[in-house]
Amino acid sequence: MFHTATKITIIAERLLQDGIISIVEAAGAKGYTIVDGSGKGEHFVRPAERAAVVSAFSIIRIEVIVNDAEQARDIARDIAGRFFKQYSGIVYLSEIEVLRPERF
Amino acid sequence: MFHTATKITIIAERLLQDGIISIVEAAGAKGYTIVDGSGKGEHFVRPAERAAVVSAFSIIRIEVIVNDAEQARDIARDIAGRFFKQYSGIVYLSEIEVLRPERF
Amino acid sequence: MFHTATKITIIAERLLQDGIISIVEAAGAKGYTIVDGSGKGEHFVRPAERAAVVSAFSIIRIEVIVNDAEQARDIARDIAGRFFKQYSGIVYLSEIEVLRPERF
Repeated sequence: MFHTATKITIIAERLLQDGIISIVEAAGAKGYTIVDGSGKGEHFVRPAERAAVVSAFSIIRIEVIVNDAEQARDIARDIAGRFFKQYSGIVYLSEIEVLRPERF
Repeated sequence: MFHTATKITIIAERLLQDGIISIVEAAGAKGYTIVDGSGKGEHFVRPAERAAVVSAFSIIRIEVIVNDAEQARDIARDIAGRFFKQYSGIVYLSEIEVLRPERF
Repeated sequence: MFHTATKITIIAERLLQDGIISIVEAAGAKGYTIVDGSGKGEHFVRPAERAAVVSAFSIIRIEVIVNDAEQARDIARDIAGRFFKQYSGIVYLSEIEVLRPERF
């Protein structure tokens, strides 16, 4: 039996990892996955750098799955509000199907 | 011309990689992508460890795309049934659009 | 407030990275994320190798988010047309929800 769930993906500078994970865990999410990457672009540039040349830099990509879409939106809003006004980064939501909702 | 397809994402401990890939290939999937990462949480803890402190550990994230949603669900059920009762890990499905269905 | 956007995911051999990023930037996308991985399968095999044993090899996974679904399809078509007739690789689209459409 498959059930609809919501995946939160956060792409951020590495220095934000612990702060983002704290929010994710405090919100009651039961797990997360982190992958290393690199990124470039306006949404990865701090305000002070906006006029300068955008250079590639190291990022992390965090995935979190929760059963409830509203809980996912709350977590996304919280992370964006807490970090992505001063720091570069993005958060987005995807609808997925999972097998065992009790794991999320 | 874009066509609807289904993406299967499997997040598992590295020791399961060969077993998971065997199921994916036996099911007739034409390709897969593997990315390394780390993970933490209830769905990554073996039953014997559930009472202990959850520590972060190395995982793999495997993506497989198939044209048929029912084939995707069969593969997901097979992987979960074979591995994710004893080992930690998750599998989820996403609807995507692809350009050349004959490649999947 | 969440808004619908489209994520383009490109999985390709590493040698295509600069060419793909050029198309993404020329199309007006404001950012991208790159993760390293490995891949195997028919859609990663060059035509000349199709009869041979398929071996795993290094790939990159690029994600790009744009607000407009038709812009996403144009970028995907352009990348597939330019690279994925001669080289192996795939491109697919996913519908997502984002918080600040002006960042994409």
